[in-house]
Amino acid sequence: MQSQDFIIKQVLEAWYIHIKRVDSLLRELSDEQLLSEIAPGKNTGLYLVGHLAAVHDSMLPLLDLDKKLHPELEEVFIKNPDKSGLQKPTVDTVKKNWKEINDQLEGYFSKMRGEDWLKRHMSISEEDFIKEPHRNKLNVLLSRTNHVANHFGQLLLLKKKHD
Amino acid sequence: MQSQDFIIKQVLEAWYIHIKRVDSLLRELSDEQLLSEIAPGKNTGLYLVGHLAAVHDSMLPLLDLDKKLHPELEEVFIKNPDKSGLQKPTVDTVKKNWKEINDQLEGYFSKMRGEDWLKRHMSISEEDFIKEPHRNKLNVLLSRTNHVANHFGQLLLLKKKHD
Repeated sequence: MQSQDFIIKQVLEAWYIHIKRVDSLLRELSDEQLLSEIAPGKNTGLYLVGHLAAVHDSMLPLLDLDKKLHPELEEVFIKNPDKSGLQKPTVDTVKKNWKEINDQLEGYFSKMRGEDWLKRHMSISEEDFIKEPHRNKLNVLLSRTNHVANHFGQLLLLKKKHD
Repeated sequence: MQSQDFIIKQVLEAWYIHIKRVDSLLRELSDEQLLSEIAPGKNTGLYLVGHLAAVHDSMLPLLDLDKKLHPELEEVFIKNPDKSGLQKPTVDTVKKNWKEINDQLEGYFSKMRGEDWLKRHMSISEEDFIKEPHRNKLNVLLSRTNHVANHFGQLLLLKKKHD
């Protein structure tokens, strides 16, 4: 049990490293940079941060922790692409949402025990989970960490210097 | 012990998912696409794939598995930036190196037991590892998985369609 909790702590640490990397990049980038496209014709920084915030918000119900804090983000940042023509919240709002959502997750994560991470997430039924026990909460965390890393790599392109 | 091995299998699975994502993208992209920059003035696809291959190659000694298969990659793809002026191997060579290195890692990973992943990696001394036991092989795997995800997000920009 001890080594199980130890490993889960390492997986959680990788999550926090990425949250902090995005936080730090958001402090560094100007609003103008965040409003530009990461490459010609591709997503803007604002869209990517809104997308990350919306996806993390959906982890609250998916991990059976809480309701979403900002369900309004889904329509603009998950269901529709950047060039949808839908009105987007401001850079400031999206940054605040991003921080608020991650803080909320952190509050819940800090109370979770190792064994809680091995329970099913809410997109799989109890019956199916018996057959597919890897579809647990830890898997959501692993896959969302890689999801942040994926878009973080893109957000880095907004920096002026060569990466 | 069983749940420890189960969790490590999940972490490994996340690694393989990303290797396969890059493999699949490499089948999809033309040489011309791989030779272009992911965004104006930024790294080319070729450089990023070479960089990933070189970093994965360095996992062989870091995880105490083997010598590097292609030590020549380090100079061009880790120690120097894309625009170094150094001659680069061809797209075909880099793709072959990438596959060969990941296959080699997979061969070793398949023989590793859960407890092997909790041993120190080769960049930390035995003395320091007693104080910092999270600096184990699993941590290398977690961080390298996020590293692939990071650059995979950038490589996706080479696709013609909007991502």
